[in-house]
Amino acid sequence: MRLTGQLLIGKSPVTGSKAVINAINPATGETLEPGYAGGGTDEVEQASELAWAAFDTYRETALEVRASFLETIASEIEALGDELIQRCMLETGLPLARLEGERGRTCGQLRLFAQVVRSGEWMGVCIDPAQVERTPMPRSDLRQRHIALGPVAVFGASNFPLAFSVAGGDTASALAAGCPVVVKAHSAHPGTSELVGRAIQAAVAKCRLPEGVFSLLFGSGREVGAALVADPRIQAVGFTGSRSGGTALMKIAQARPQPIPMYAEMSSINPVFLLSEALEARCTNIAKGFVGSLTMGAGQFCTNPGLVIAVKGTALDAFLDATKEALHDTTAQTMLTPGIHQAYKESVNNLATSGKVRELARGRAGESSHQGQAGLYVAAGSDFLADETLQAEVFGATALVVECADMAEVHSIAEALEGQLTATLQLDDGDLASARALLPILERKAGRILVNGFPTGVEVCHAMVHGGPFPATSDSRTTSVGSAAIHRFLRPVCYQDLPDALLPEAIRDGNPLNLNRLIDGRRQPSPDTRG
Amino acid sequence: MRLTGQLLIGKSPVTGSKAVINAINPATGETLEPGYAGGGTDEVEQASELAWAAFDTYRETALEVRASFLETIASEIEALGDELIQRCMLETGLPLARLEGERGRTCGQLRLFAQVVRSGEWMGVCIDPAQVERTPMPRSDLRQRHIALGPVAVFGASNFPLAFSVAGGDTASALAAGCPVVVKAHSAHPGTSELVGRAIQAAVAKCRLPEGVFSLLFGSGREVGAALVADPRIQAVGFTGSRSGGTALMKIAQARPQPIPMYAEMSSINPVFLLSEALEARCTNIAKGFVGSLTMGAGQFCTNPGLVIAVKGTALDAFLDATKEALHDTTAQTMLTPGIHQAYKESVNNLATSGKVRELARGRAGESSHQGQAGLYVAAGSDFLADETLQAEVFGATALVVECADMAEVHSIAEALEGQLTATLQLDDGDLASARALLPILERKAGRILVNGFPTGVEVCHAMVHGGPFPATSDSRTTSVGSAAIHRFLRPVCYQDLPDALLPEAIRDGNPLNLNRLIDGRRQPSPDTRG
Repeated sequence: MRLTGQLLIGKSPVTGSKAVINAINPATGETLEPGYAGGGTDEVEQASELAWAAFDTYRETALEVRASFLETIASEIEALGDELIQRCMLETGLPLARLEGERGRTCGQLRLFAQVVRSGEWMGVCIDPAQVERTPMPRSDLRQRHIALGPVAVFGASNFPLAFSVAGGDTASALAAGCPVVVKAHSAHPGTSELVGRAIQAAVAKCRLPEGVFSLLFGSGREVGAALVADPRIQAVGFTGSRSGGTALMKIAQARPQPIPMYAEMSSINPVFLLSEALEARCTNIAKGFVGSLTMGAGQFCTNPGLVIAVKGTALDAFLDATKEALHDTTAQTMLTPGIHQAYKESVNNLATSGKVRELARGRAGESSHQGQAGLYVAAGSDFLADETLQAEVFGATALVVECADMAEVHSIAEALEGQLTATLQLDDGDLASARALLPILERKAGRILVNGFPTGVEVCHAMVHGGPFPATSDSRTTSVGSAAIHRFLRPVCYQDLPDALLPEAIRDGNPLNLNRLIDGRRQPSPDTRG
Repeated sequence: MRLTGQLLIGKSPVTGSKAVINAINPATGETLEPGYAGGGTDEVEQASELAWAAFDTYRETALEVRASFLETIASEIEALGDELIQRCMLETGLPLARLEGERGRTCGQLRLFAQVVRSGEWMGVCIDPAQVERTPMPRSDLRQRHIALGPVAVFGASNFPLAFSVAGGDTASALAAGCPVVVKAHSAHPGTSELVGRAIQAAVAKCRLPEGVFSLLFGSGREVGAALVADPRIQAVGFTGSRSGGTALMKIAQARPQPIPMYAEMSSINPVFLLSEALEARCTNIAKGFVGSLTMGAGQFCTNPGLVIAVKGTALDAFLDATKEALHDTTAQTMLTPGIHQAYKESVNNLATSGKVRELARGRAGESSHQGQAGLYVAAGSDFLADETLQAEVFGATALVVECADMAEVHSIAEALEGQLTATLQLDDGDLASARALLPILERKAGRILVNGFPTGVEVCHAMVHGGPFPATSDSRTTSVGSAAIHRFLRPVCYQDLPDALLPEAIRDGNPLNLNRLIDGRRQPSPDTRG
């Protein structure tokens, strides 16, 4: 497929009129063609208007139609074949195997949401039948289902050019909920975005859905993004990116005449707690696992383990030695963009020159441009507690180890942490009491708690929570990975005394959609329960 | 019980040091004793600190303990007997039967949440078991449950001195979720608040819960409320009141270093659509029902039907005649406070002098102070569309009828409406097609859609949605009435590969709490399913 450099507004390719974006191959510094002339407020208007026009139809599509649509998107992405992977490699510097895996995850996630749509659990149907004889007042017939919020703006992330970009988790969950989507492409991978955007566009056409179900905008700077979040037809926002970018969009979302939900996944240093027995017994293995997780994908994951916390002593020293050794052997990897590489170097430098840390080890230096060199620093618990800048996320393969005086200081540090996506415990049987004491703190701090693993590698499933208290995300009540992400884009509506002929199928007598329904507060075990 | 005029901070009565609040009997203008010296930031600090200290313990209380606590609160409120009702009558001007009914609703709601707590559905447990053999990567064991957000600030509402005040729906749902509650009492009914606060305090002690589970603050002006919403230990806010008050608190909640969810139920004019066949067939009955709903409780309900929309013609004229007649006969009723009465008079005056409406009828004038006189005004559809100030809520028994040129104008008006708590359709069989065409618009505009009823009288049940798009509420994804209100105060946490000994009971193998659980995305019909 020839890349055109155009925006996709509904079914129409549109050439932008603003500054041109070119991807840069971070491995070589080479500028990639074509250029993508950015859109402006006109294109935001057009895409939002089409999305709005599509909304009432799309949100009431039959479950099977919507599920097939999601599956068709997956097939269309797969049909792009190697072209997609090759272009994505050029734009991101990510290796083949990683991108093939990420494509699998992207398509798997779309198909998971297709199953979710079919099951209908997401509608959260409950029915409280009328009680005509009740005294002193009869009860009306009351039925609740969830409906889509409205058109959703999605911001592609740089670090998952497939799985959290144009057809990524935010888009998949919003489409599954019945929301049209307008994507603002990440400027780092416009060609990848165009290819995937065209795949979605093709799926919209194949499934005979209104064209406004999907649009793709390009634009440098913040003009397009800000206009999109401010557009009155946009009813929710999905964003994965930096804390500064996320909080800026949060402010716009809240300052609208009608404030809207803004789901920003932003910043997390993902603390790893090494408990004493585990450290004694397995310091070398833990060190290897840790360095593997730290350096995976050049450390460019939201769940990268950027903080290690343990009580100082010979076991921790042994762990540090083993980590140092493992880290020395790591090769520098190409980072996603020149800008990310530059920011990484600056963040590492800020940490190294903070006066509060000592350098433990660096990985091998890069041999070509934009390669991120791994790093490990050590700070004392008291210094970490005294200086909250040491909690700043370093986006890349650098971590800070905090040496604590005792478990009391470990607790103080856990309490002092900002909100996190994850918290990890390395423990053995003898550590259970310590772990149990930490757990209530970690539950308050993080969306996901792991034992004896590492936080990178986020499973796309039903129980996943990729979320957490601010600033990990803007809304700890949700997740952006996994099937529960659909709930972000829904709201409940109650129908009181509607005649069956007016009721949506999901809440009609006779349960024509065979849904699990909560009747009078009791879950009906089998379908076909009459409401 | 002797009223002391003190704040309740945990188990301690505390005398405030700020300006003294006295309730005023709105029926007589008489000042009621005792005075309640307001708290300041010190008392906010103390209450929040106690709530925070109680949080980890309270959120993990056994389901039975928490359910019993809610039931004990209900019993303690009932044990206050006539004293509560008498004091509440003096402070609010509301009649005996209404307050007895409201007490029943308040206690019923607490007991409903006790059932909800016991059922455990609110934890939303789902388990994706490990897949050790999966290739290329094994899957970890992933389990999700919901936990409480943290201490919640609740603002008592003036218009439900029992059911949406100190032990009202916000408090009940937050306590059910496992959140300690700090209530800012409404200054209109401090004595009622103290009595109910002491009932909760007694229940905390009887159930041997940490004292910080509940505190009650008094304070004039906005100092206490603003400090409470800004306090870093407060993690969510429940508010029922005016649009200006709600949006001011929203701003504070969002401007915190860590923004928090703010659930404000604010402003709604609850449109009633009269479709043509129904109007032809039943105009007199609809008029009677409408006037009954409009004037109930002096119109001081969030769901008061303040807007009627119909196509002009002889049927609408007949409805207006019947409404006029019914309204003429209504007696003025004492409003909740002198301030509310004054604001009502001003709102009616603004409407009457807008130059866009004509007066159709007024009810009888009041014979004593602070009685609200009912009113009905008529505007042309085109004028309503041209002037959004005609959508301003008039808090009291005054409504506006909009005469439309045709159904197309009815649709335009429906589309032009702000977010609403409710939308009502009066229809007969011949109106089904018209209703079906309006329904998608109403679903986007309102949290609850009624047919052939009136919006006042909000059932406390599972399917209820007392919520809706802004400005009806600050968060359309939720409800403040009914069992689903509990979800406002919860967030999901995922547990990855935790040994059974560390897992919370709700997600342990063997399902010791006998919960409905979603296993691998499939709902398990019977308990005892092994995860």
